[in-house]
Amino acid sequence: MSATHLQPLPGFRDFAPNQYAVRSYLFRSWRSVAARYGFVEWEGPVLEPTELYLKKSGGELPTQLFRFSDQGGRDVSLRPELTASLGRIVAANYLDYNRPFKWFEIGSCFRYEKPQKGRLREFVQFNVDILGEEGPEADAELLALAIDCMRVLGLSASDFVVRVSDREVWLSFARQHGLTSEQIPDFLAAVDKLERDRPEVSEKKLADLGISRECVVNFIQTPPQGISPRYEAVLAELQARGLADYVQLDLSVVRGLAYYTGLVFEIFDKAHSLRAVAGGGRYDGLVSTLTDGSLTMPATGFAMGDAVIAHLIEECPSARARRDAALTPHSCDVYLALAAAEMRPQMLLLASTLRDAGVRVDMPLSSAKLAKQLRHAERLGATYTAIIGSEFPSIELKRMDTRESSRLSLEEVICTLIPHKASN
Amino acid sequence: MSATHLQPLPGFRDFAPNQYAVRSYLFRSWRSVAARYGFVEWEGPVLEPTELYLKKSGGELPTQLFRFSDQGGRDVSLRPELTASLGRIVAANYLDYNRPFKWFEIGSCFRYEKPQKGRLREFVQFNVDILGEEGPEADAELLALAIDCMRVLGLSASDFVVRVSDREVWLSFARQHGLTSEQIPDFLAAVDKLERDRPEVSEKKLADLGISRECVVNFIQTPPQGISPRYEAVLAELQARGLADYVQLDLSVVRGLAYYTGLVFEIFDKAHSLRAVAGGGRYDGLVSTLTDGSLTMPATGFAMGDAVIAHLIEECPSARARRDAALTPHSCDVYLALAAAEMRPQMLLLASTLRDAGVRVDMPLSSAKLAKQLRHAERLGATYTAIIGSEFPSIELKRMDTRESSRLSLEEVICTLIPHKASN
Repeated sequence: MSATHLQPLPGFRDFAPNQYAVRSYLFRSWRSVAARYGFVEWEGPVLEPTELYLKKSGGELPTQLFRFSDQGGRDVSLRPELTASLGRIVAANYLDYNRPFKWFEIGSCFRYEKPQKGRLREFVQFNVDILGEEGPEADAELLALAIDCMRVLGLSASDFVVRVSDREVWLSFARQHGLTSEQIPDFLAAVDKLERDRPEVSEKKLADLGISRECVVNFIQTPPQGISPRYEAVLAELQARGLADYVQLDLSVVRGLAYYTGLVFEIFDKAHSLRAVAGGGRYDGLVSTLTDGSLTMPATGFAMGDAVIAHLIEECPSARARRDAALTPHSCDVYLALAAAEMRPQMLLLASTLRDAGVRVDMPLSSAKLAKQLRHAERLGATYTAIIGSEFPSIELKRMDTRESSRLSLEEVICTLIPHKASN
Repeated sequence: MSATHLQPLPGFRDFAPNQYAVRSYLFRSWRSVAARYGFVEWEGPVLEPTELYLKKSGGELPTQLFRFSDQGGRDVSLRPELTASLGRIVAANYLDYNRPFKWFEIGSCFRYEKPQKGRLREFVQFNVDILGEEGPEADAELLALAIDCMRVLGLSASDFVVRVSDREVWLSFARQHGLTSEQIPDFLAAVDKLERDRPEVSEKKLADLGISRECVVNFIQTPPQGISPRYEAVLAELQARGLADYVQLDLSVVRGLAYYTGLVFEIFDKAHSLRAVAGGGRYDGLVSTLTDGSLTMPATGFAMGDAVIAHLIEECPSARARRDAALTPHSCDVYLALAAAEMRPQMLLLASTLRDAGVRVDMPLSSAKLAKQLRHAERLGATYTAIIGSEFPSIELKRMDTRESSRLSLEEVICTLIPHKASN
C-alpha cells in the first residue's frame, strides 16, 4: 500500500476500535454530565453556507475555512464551530421549546490550521449553551457543568483552573481611557494577545490606542476590588455549589471571537503547558445578529474540544487510571465454542435466543480447533464460554475469570446467561 | 431572518432536540444489535483524499462527490461511503486485532444528488463489516444482524424482505453465454438496471452483448434449483437461527458498485414503495485493491442509511409505536423549585449533591413564581419536584405522576432520590 493511502489527510484522524473506545469514553462522560444538568442534545449539518460564518464570527475563522463551491455553485464551508448552526436552529424552532433552552451538541468541526499538539484540522467539539436566561445564575450553571465535565474524568482543582473574565470590565476600562467604539475591537484584540505577543508588539498596539501597556498589565495583575459585579454573583453561586475552588478572576482572558458580550472564561491545565481545554462566555447579541434582529435571546455557552482534554487525561495519573478502567474489554457476555461440527444448527439457535434477550454473544464463523476457539474467547474478554459438543443439549459452561466449569442443561445455560445480562 | 439563513443547504438537515431524539433512538437500536453480535465501533475522517474513491468504487460515486482543493492544494472529498476508509484503517491496524474483525461505524456520508424522499446529500450510514472470514457462515452472521436491526425496531417479515443474490451465478451465466471479461461490467450493469430501465433500453443493452432480455428475465424468474451453493449454505444457517422467513433468492439484485464479488443483498419494504433500506455483500478483493496487493482479506459487509428506514418506521404502526414509546420525555429525575429566594444557596448545594450521584436535576436560573416553576417541571417530564422553601431543611417532595406529596427532611429527600436513580 502506498504511504498516502495508509494515512488520513494531515490533521485528520483514523479511529480503529481501540482508539474509538478512548474517544467514546470521553463522549459518554460529556453526555452523562449534560444529562445530570438537564441538557438535551441537538445536531446540525457538517456543511453550511459560508455566509453563516462570515456574518458572525470575526477573528481568524474566515481564513481557516475548508471552503468551496458545491456542484450547484453554492459557496459552502465545513463548519468551523457549532454556534452559528445553533443560532439558526434555535431561531427556526423557538416556539416548540420551553425557555430556557439547555442544549448541547457533540460534533466534528474543521479548521485549516497547522496541525500540532492539541490542534487538528478535524476535531470534535462538545458545545453547551443556555439560551433565554440573562442572569449570572445561567453563567454559573454553565461553569458548574464545565467543571463537572473535568471532575467526572478524574481531574481535580490541582489539575486545572477556570480563568474567568468579564468583557464589560474592559469596555468600561476602554471608555474611561477615551476609546471610541471603532477602537474597541483592536483594543480587545491587543489584550487578548497580551500573553502571546512580545512586549514591544503589545506596547506598540496599545500605544496606538493611547494606552500604556503597563497600565493594562497593572489592571490585570491587581484588579480593583468588586470590579465585576457579574463575576461576584457567579462566584457566590459557585460557592454555594461547593465549586469556588475551581475558578479565579483573570482579566487577561478576552476570547478571540467578536460576539462575546459579558462573562467569558477559559479552562487551562494548572501547569499551563497545554492550549485551552475549553472556552466560552456570554453572547447575548448573536441570535439577534443571525436572525437580522427578528429574534432576541440572551445566551451563554462554551465549547470543549476532544484533543487537548485527551492530552490532559494522559498527563494526569488519576484521570488516566479512571479512563483505562473504563476501557477494560467487555464486549462479549458469552462465547459459544463448537466442539462438534454437527451441532452447529443447535449453536446458532442458542445464539439467536440469547441475542434476542440482549446478551452479547460471539461464536466461530468457520471451523477451528476447540483450543483456538477458547483462546479467542479469552481475547474477546468473554465472561463465559459455553462449549457445545456431541453431548448437547448438555453444555459445559465455563466462567472465564475463575475457570470454574459446570455441566448444565440447555435451559440452565439460558437461565444463567439471561439473568446475568439483566442484572447488568 | 432571511429565508436562506433559516434553512440548512438543500439535502442537509437540522436536528433540534425533538428530531435528534428520533435519530438517537435509531442509532441506539443499531448499536445495541451490533453489541449483541460482538461488533466493535470505529470511526474515520469525514474528509478524505479523492483518490481513495476513484480507486475503488466505480459506478456513479465519482460524479456525486463533494470534491474540492483544500488550502494546501490537496484534491479532497467529503466521504460518499465508509468502506474505503475502513479498508485503510484495517490495513494500517491488522496486526493489532484478532480475526475475524467484526467492526461497525455510524457516520455521516455525502453525495451530491437530487434530494428526494429517502435520498439526501448528507445522510448517516450504519456500516457493518466482517473481515477475515470467507465462508457463508460470515455472510449469514451479517444477514442475521441486518434482519435483527429491523426486528429491534418493531419491523417483521410482513414489513420487509431481504432479497439475496449471488454475483458468482451471473458470472457463470455470462461465461456460458460467451461474454469476455471486458463485457462483464456492462452485463452486470444492464442486469442491475433491469427493473428501472424501460424494456426497450434493457433489450438493446443486452442485445449488444449477444443476449436476449427474455433469456435473462426467465433466468431471474425461475432460477435453476441449487444454482447458488453459497445461497443454499447461507439459507441453512439462517434457518437454524429461525430467520429463514426474512430472505428470498432474487437474482435481479446485482448492486451497483464494482467491487462486490459474491453474495449480495438488499433489504426492501414489502410493498416495495421505498428505495432500498440497506444493501451489501461480499467484497473479497477490495482490501487487496486498496493496499495495492500488500494485504488480502476476505470481507462481507452492508450499509443501512438513516433516511429510508425512518420512512419505513413512520409507515408501520407497530414500529412507530415502539419508537414513540422510546421517545417519552424522561430528561429530568427531579426539579428543584425555589419557594423562598433566600434559600437559593441551599438549593444549589442540594443540586450539586444529587448531580454528583448521577441524578438528573433541573432548577430555576432566574426568579419565577412557584406555579410557573411547577408548570416547567411538568413540561420537563420530571419524576419528582422538591419544593425548597423557608421551612428548609424540611422539604416538600412531590411525585409528579401521582401528585402525591410528602414533607421530608433533607436527608430523606437525598435518600429517596439517590436510590431512585440507582435502581434505574
